[in-house]
Amino acid sequence: MSQMNVFPLIGIGAATLNSKGEMLDVRYHYISSESEEHINNINSKGLNYKFFEQLTEESSEMNEFKEAFSRSLALDSNQKIIFCRVESDKKIDNICDAYLKLYLLSLRVVKPNSINLEGIFSALPNVAWTNQGPVDPKEIESLRSTKGNFLVRSVDKFPCLTDYLIPTGVRIGDSTRVRLGAYLSEGTTVMHEGFVNFNAGTLGAAMIEGRISAGVVVGKNSDLGGGCSTMGTLSGGNDIKISVGDDCLLGANSGLGIPLGDRCIVEAGLYLTGGSKVEKKDKDGNTIEIVKASDLSHQNDLLFIRNSLTGVIECRPNMKNVELNETLHSND
Amino acid sequence: MSQMNVFPLIGIGAATLNSKGEMLDVRYHYISSESEEHINNINSKGLNYKFFEQLTEESSEMNEFKEAFSRSLALDSNQKIIFCRVESDKKIDNICDAYLKLYLLSLRVVKPNSINLEGIFSALPNVAWTNQGPVDPKEIESLRSTKGNFLVRSVDKFPCLTDYLIPTGVRIGDSTRVRLGAYLSEGTTVMHEGFVNFNAGTLGAAMIEGRISAGVVVGKNSDLGGGCSTMGTLSGGNDIKISVGDDCLLGANSGLGIPLGDRCIVEAGLYLTGGSKVEKKDKDGNTIEIVKASDLSHQNDLLFIRNSLTGVIECRPNMKNVELNETLHSND
Amino acid sequence: MSQMNVFPLIGIGAATLNSKGEMLDVRYHYISSESEEHINNINSKGLNYKFFEQLTEESSEMNEFKEAFSRSLALDSNQKIIFCRVESDKKIDNICDAYLKLYLLSLRVVKPNSINLEGIFSALPNVAWTNQGPVDPKEIESLRSTKGNFLVRSVDKFPCLTDYLIPTGVRIGDSTRVRLGAYLSEGTTVMHEGFVNFNAGTLGAAMIEGRISAGVVVGKNSDLGGGCSTMGTLSGGNDIKISVGDDCLLGANSGLGIPLGDRCIVEAGLYLTGGSKVEKKDKDGNTIEIVKASDLSHQNDLLFIRNSLTGVIECRPNMKNVELNETLHSND
Repeated sequence: MSQMNVFPLIGIGAATLNSKGEMLDVRYHYISSESEEHINNINSKGLNYKFFEQLTEESSEMNEFKEAFSRSLALDSNQKIIFCRVESDKKIDNICDAYLKLYLLSLRVVKPNSINLEGIFSALPNVAWTNQGPVDPKEIESLRSTKGNFLVRSVDKFPCLTDYLIPTGVRIGDSTRVRLGAYLSEGTTVMHEGFVNFNAGTLGAAMIEGRISAGVVVGKNSDLGGGCSTMGTLSGGNDIKISVGDDCLLGANSGLGIPLGDRCIVEAGLYLTGGSKVEKKDKDGNTIEIVKASDLSHQNDLLFIRNSLTGVIECRPNMKNVELNETLHSND
Repeated sequence: MSQMNVFPLIGIGAATLNSKGEMLDVRYHYISSESEEHINNINSKGLNYKFFEQLTEESSEMNEFKEAFSRSLALDSNQKIIFCRVESDKKIDNICDAYLKLYLLSLRVVKPNSINLEGIFSALPNVAWTNQGPVDPKEIESLRSTKGNFLVRSVDKFPCLTDYLIPTGVRIGDSTRVRLGAYLSEGTTVMHEGFVNFNAGTLGAAMIEGRISAGVVVGKNSDLGGGCSTMGTLSGGNDIKISVGDDCLLGANSGLGIPLGDRCIVEAGLYLTGGSKVEKKDKDGNTIEIVKASDLSHQNDLLFIRNSLTGVIECRPNMKNVELNETLHSND
Repeated sequence: MSQMNVFPLIGIGAATLNSKGEMLDVRYHYISSESEEHINNINSKGLNYKFFEQLTEESSEMNEFKEAFSRSLALDSNQKIIFCRVESDKKIDNICDAYLKLYLLSLRVVKPNSINLEGIFSALPNVAWTNQGPVDPKEIESLRSTKGNFLVRSVDKFPCLTDYLIPTGVRIGDSTRVRLGAYLSEGTTVMHEGFVNFNAGTLGAAMIEGRISAGVVVGKNSDLGGGCSTMGTLSGGNDIKISVGDDCLLGANSGLGIPLGDRCIVEAGLYLTGGSKVEKKDKDGNTIEIVKASDLSHQNDLLFIRNSLTGVIECRPNMKNVELNETLHSND
């Protein structure tokens, strides 16, 4: 499906409620576009877009459907079926919209930065994510005696990806560190030190041992070394959207504050901010000019290092090929 | 309540025992000072300080109370009610004391570094923290067949905060990384890469994506970037107590080995140890003097960078305001 | 037992199966060498090597044993008893071999890099590790409705150590970050930011707050600071096997690309790659020569720093003793 005609969409799922009946999350069992290309139909065989298109939320047929579907999913008393229709890609204004868009990203239907996520922070409540499912953090203390032991994985507006869906061909060393809304392509390994925010991810097979901030995308066959940092735009005062091209290597404990082209390397331990002044060298090691790192945005075949005898950040032509270890990327 | 008159205190809670009857943890349901200001009264309405003040540990009334309270909490056979009276802020000499003090910190009753925690490591046993509660690591193998699957979150002397209480207005991306005894102020977000040890934390709203070592406190509106490090005093040989003032920014993958004043910035990727020699510049960029970083402790409005064309660590006057992203800090 | 005569070995354990009957994991309850030194006999008292030596896999006695053992362990319907005999240390060609060798490492029977692990990635399937045990990632979505809430810890070929065994005298802050196959010596503390891969670990008491890559070993009384990196050989293009000697300190956020001798220090924040050119100084601070860091491999008593007034990486004689904090290493 082309990304352009994803909308309008219908989503049907189960929400968990707190004691006041407020929604804590939505698990979508069915997502379909008008063209009836089923984006997601786990535990929802037989549902079809045309049927729902004619129904109003209040109709008796809708109620009947919801009751039947609720029984088939064996919902708990603090869960209910929700129905969500999104006509077009507008600002998010409720939790159902928010989860639908996070699903679209993680189901690889839409790419990061291609969909309107404005309003998502206020649409999502803060939730305690536990081994017994989502719980309102304000209510958890009084539930501990009656519901048995809670192992609280996180207290956050975003759930972790793997509690909602596991993309094919992906490994994730510590799944607490990948939020729902992450876009992980087939062949991606996120090691234990890796992190992937929502609206961010990999566009092809990749080895991720560093942190992919919200809005950041990484090209195919790239390798983010352990503990490396990509600057985000949500906090820290950065405006430029960072990205990593194809066949790049960010060394361990390095950092990136510019959008990189293809076949670039940032040396282990070097933090390249956009404002860093850099000595640009030719292949013989002669200095061509001094530029700001941000002036090298999107350029291919660059190697960034800090000269260990002068302390100067240098940018040299990159002659090496970065190759992913095939064995590590066969994620069957 | 002023921090000065917290003691004497009474705490009543439930301990989990190993097969030898040794305590593994204490979950406090009731904590009260003499002034009857209830510090914590989850599932313990109706208890009052005066009643317990007159009771001895061995009295029949105490036993009756314990039995009744045990029933009301539906304790398991490997749990028992404990009663703990702490007269004054002396050295910790048992697990009940230790948990009581960790609770005081995480309940925001006492600030980090304001309470005597000597002896805590020996008072706390090493425990396997699981989805089925605390288990003695020496006993877990023989329990796996009968008790079903254990997901072991950690094997540590300290439990994680959120398994005991969730402070209001706080988000925690990966709750394994915040120990009980962390002091997290309202409006604090600890992202997945953040870490907060016991006797450490935030004195106001803050964005924490780095590591707050034991004894370290962070002022309000400060931002600790992804993977940044604050030097602790427990290991690594450091003596100086590190802190971060208000409105500071530690860049991603940076490090801090001095106590910072307010409105200071440490550039992404720069590790500022106390012994680092630093070129102090005026606002026109002229070098004033060369000083040790530790000589700049507690000074305000400083910007620390490593000059990317010379490799020199410089300290310049900081002209920028650090502002937290409001949307990210509304933790409802 | 000398490491040389571990083989031949017999292992008996329980495998979890997916819906097609394919094995997802093996939990060994009994591992014994020919000499009948019981390497592991959790829940398997009374079994002996000689008995099994005579049995063929298809014999009726073997079947009887398996049925009886299955009942005694109260196995689920998706579990079965497996019997594994390994004659010699050859390439791994199935999941039973793979788990047996991972157990040998974590049980401290064989040291990292002393055993043939070739083929392990293809022998291990990708698994969703959950609070309900191992699940096939392709099957988890359809199981969510019937099996209740899954908390997925990771999606990986390797399980985490503590779900299979907890070595004595060890603390692990975040057990998701230590894989089965890690070798952790008595007295080792792996803090929350620490990570230990399979076929890697500590040869004595150690404080680990950084990342130990596959193949890397750390000597006794060494301290790996928060977020420090040791270069691995699995990805990133590095060939040299990295190691850390005894009594070493890798500072927080530092990195290591050479094998270190004893009593060496790498300053916080410094990434020392093998190719880094380094000014070697004598104890009076005079430069002796300029060498590649890799030329200093395995040498003792070295201190690596980046001069903060010149940006030059220097190697000086190390005069300091690194001492672990005793309190932190008493892991009872």
